[in-house]
Amino acid sequence: MAGIVSLPRNETGIETVTGILKQSFGERLQTGQSIREQHGHTTTWIENQAPDAVVFPHSTVEVSDIVKVCATHDVPVIPYGTGTSLEGHVNAPAGGICIDLSQMNAVLEVNADDLDCRVQPGVTREDLNTWLRDKGLFFPIDPGANASLGGMASTRASGTNAVRYGTMKDNVLAVEAVMADGRVIRTGTRARKSSAGYDLTRLLVGSEGTLGIITEITLRLQGIPEAISSARCSFPTVDAACRAVTAVIQYGVPVARIELLDTTMVQAVNGYSALGLPETPLLLLEFHGTKTGVEEQAAIFGAIAADQGGSGFEATSTPEERNRLWKARHDAYWAMLQYRPGAKGVATDACVPISKLADCVNAAQERAAELGLVAPIVGHAGDGNFHVTPLVFMDDPEEVAKAQDFVSWLSDLAISVGGTCTGEHGIGQGKQKYLEAELGDATLVMSAIKAALDPANIMNPGKIFAPQE
Amino acid sequence: MAGIVSLPRNETGIETVTGILKQSFGERLQTGQSIREQHGHTTTWIENQAPDAVVFPHSTVEVSDIVKVCATHDVPVIPYGTGTSLEGHVNAPAGGICIDLSQMNAVLEVNADDLDCRVQPGVTREDLNTWLRDKGLFFPIDPGANASLGGMASTRASGTNAVRYGTMKDNVLAVEAVMADGRVIRTGTRARKSSAGYDLTRLLVGSEGTLGIITEITLRLQGIPEAISSARCSFPTVDAACRAVTAVIQYGVPVARIELLDTTMVQAVNGYSALGLPETPLLLLEFHGTKTGVEEQAAIFGAIAADQGGSGFEATSTPEERNRLWKARHDAYWAMLQYRPGAKGVATDACVPISKLADCVNAAQERAAELGLVAPIVGHAGDGNFHVTPLVFMDDPEEVAKAQDFVSWLSDLAISVGGTCTGEHGIGQGKQKYLEAELGDATLVMSAIKAALDPANIMNPGKIFAPQE
Repeated sequence: MAGIVSLPRNETGIETVTGILKQSFGERLQTGQSIREQHGHTTTWIENQAPDAVVFPHSTVEVSDIVKVCATHDVPVIPYGTGTSLEGHVNAPAGGICIDLSQMNAVLEVNADDLDCRVQPGVTREDLNTWLRDKGLFFPIDPGANASLGGMASTRASGTNAVRYGTMKDNVLAVEAVMADGRVIRTGTRARKSSAGYDLTRLLVGSEGTLGIITEITLRLQGIPEAISSARCSFPTVDAACRAVTAVIQYGVPVARIELLDTTMVQAVNGYSALGLPETPLLLLEFHGTKTGVEEQAAIFGAIAADQGGSGFEATSTPEERNRLWKARHDAYWAMLQYRPGAKGVATDACVPISKLADCVNAAQERAAELGLVAPIVGHAGDGNFHVTPLVFMDDPEEVAKAQDFVSWLSDLAISVGGTCTGEHGIGQGKQKYLEAELGDATLVMSAIKAALDPANIMNPGKIFAPQE
Repeated sequence: MAGIVSLPRNETGIETVTGILKQSFGERLQTGQSIREQHGHTTTWIENQAPDAVVFPHSTVEVSDIVKVCATHDVPVIPYGTGTSLEGHVNAPAGGICIDLSQMNAVLEVNADDLDCRVQPGVTREDLNTWLRDKGLFFPIDPGANASLGGMASTRASGTNAVRYGTMKDNVLAVEAVMADGRVIRTGTRARKSSAGYDLTRLLVGSEGTLGIITEITLRLQGIPEAISSARCSFPTVDAACRAVTAVIQYGVPVARIELLDTTMVQAVNGYSALGLPETPLLLLEFHGTKTGVEEQAAIFGAIAADQGGSGFEATSTPEERNRLWKARHDAYWAMLQYRPGAKGVATDACVPISKLADCVNAAQERAAELGLVAPIVGHAGDGNFHVTPLVFMDDPEEVAKAQDFVSWLSDLAISVGGTCTGEHGIGQGKQKYLEAELGDATLVMSAIKAALDPANIMNPGKIFAPQE
């Protein structure tokens, strides 16, 4: 795809480093083409740029050793979790060594009384929640994919229940990280809040491996709520649905999830699962609290929905019925792919003030229609974050160009109404050209920090900052 | 007081800059001794180090102009809000220009539908809440003092209701800041979440004016809850009170405030206001939600408190009765000062995992007793943050030395149990020696960022980092 740059390769350095690491890591360093390509794999339309070798460390010390060798020989290091990032984060535009952290997958400590835990970066969110279940605890961030917690921290992930529990920035208490010179730092303590110097935790969260490699994460946990209830309601228009969302948030209902599906997405899930939903915009909600509390929350939503012309309101707190209500959301990804078989979904990630959500969703629908794109929309409506996903035949250059045009247009739109081009996916390679439009001279401060902490630019080069061609 | 360093002064530069700024600012630049001393004033025991001049800008452009002049002549700039910081943050150890932001006090924009607003840094939290009241909104962070929002952002302030609403790091969406070269940056948008590059918002929040001067803040707001209720309960021991706190948090009760007063503090408030409270540890709580919700929360707490031997449990949701119940907390500061007339309170700010809170409070009481110090304790118990305040006659060198010994001992204790020496006050001058013990090599990363963004060290020099003597 146009726009993804290859960077100059340090062939000698790469060869030297691969040889040195092979000595230490043996079979835990792989150079076969398929494994390398798999580690350049992204779930985007961005082309694959495979690393030269993939190494599987088992400890922070080993990660530090790898980075030191790479630093000595000026070779890029690219951290890898599960490969579910969406903006080319694990590509290797200058080649180099991919550090696959999946074998660092231990839950190191759970402090139930303090509602915190310490994990290695390769632990996935589902693994952690399985581990926690019998302790009555859970980790709330749910980006959809069963991502690794290291990857989720690195991209500042969030997802469906950020509206209540926040994003990774709110749920990481501290990280341990290997910096560009191989030094290991720890950015915080187990204290739930701190004013001790610069907030390096939040600096590393979302830095996409460009400042350091996260080798341990201290996370906040939540008690599993006494009761969970779900609700579903159809609305005549996107505007009506969004007015209901705004009212729920303003009323202070501590809604755990509030998801919007547009008409096209409802058509897709109807086709995939024969749900028979009215083909109009749909809201899906989840409430966490006491038994009385979740009933009250659902009732308040029901009243708000009725005010906005909602129809087909249903609420339930039994697990089976909750799954039935939410099936439209759980199936959305697969339903979307089947809606246009053979097409690839081009993810977008605009996040806007919620007062602008309805206008932006309407404008996106119109723009997609003008361009002749099929583009279902699902949104984390309580945060104003919505994903329009043009379904594109990648072998049709004209359609690909239209999709690129759409992504640019949508990023510009989000920025123009006081929002961001990326609510939760990150910049990676795909969103670099919008970062300066969004944040202006602040990007120069980011570059200065990058240069200070990684002067040789070996930490995941070519990400966040537009590379020099 | 020992330990506070004066830094070399650039006399020529200071004289030149003062002359230049006098031309532009006229009466808005002041050099009288009393105003200078007032701007070096802190509410700590740290000695006064007055700036050479105080300037009162009215706009971001003026702040930028001042910083540019100071940068050209290598003169320190110290931002000043209301002077309520506790660790010498506004002292001028190398002299220089104090930028008093109190006249930049406009609420620039309130977006009720989006629950956000944009304010100048001199707006105080009480002013903002007065402004918001008739819109049904409020800003939840309450550090006690009527601090300016710029100062609160700069020190990453929190206070009594952080347990529910988080700290400044969680409630600042973006800042505008003047950097060391006078460049103005904006770190984010009005989107409620973002993954767009490094989190410069969180880097500036808590940076204590050492990286940039915050000239505008975009804040998250909350809807005023439908109902508020308060509760109060006495406990036989600190352990019992802390077990009740842990149970409340683990149960998932969305408590808005949960404050611990130790026996000495209860004695002080009894003496001050004739409250007649049992002289044992006391918990005060506040609940926000629907009418049904707050009643349920209070009832759950009542049951938990009874399990832990609590007595004298009272709960109420009428404003007058709530004030009566919370009087002990509202009066704590004044009661403390009157408890030992003529003494000064030496603030401490340990924050520990809540499972360690009881042990740490007990140990602090024993240590204070061993040293012969009178030291009431009040704690934001839900966050594990507690303030032991030795009441010290500052003209008694032996007692001052004991208090210093105590502060060191308590900081070490907090760090040794996985906590921090400062939960909400910041490092400033007073906590520098503990920062490295707490965060090790992470402080080198902080120094590298400081050197990259402020190479001449003109931004509030001598704060956070131990100055070179």
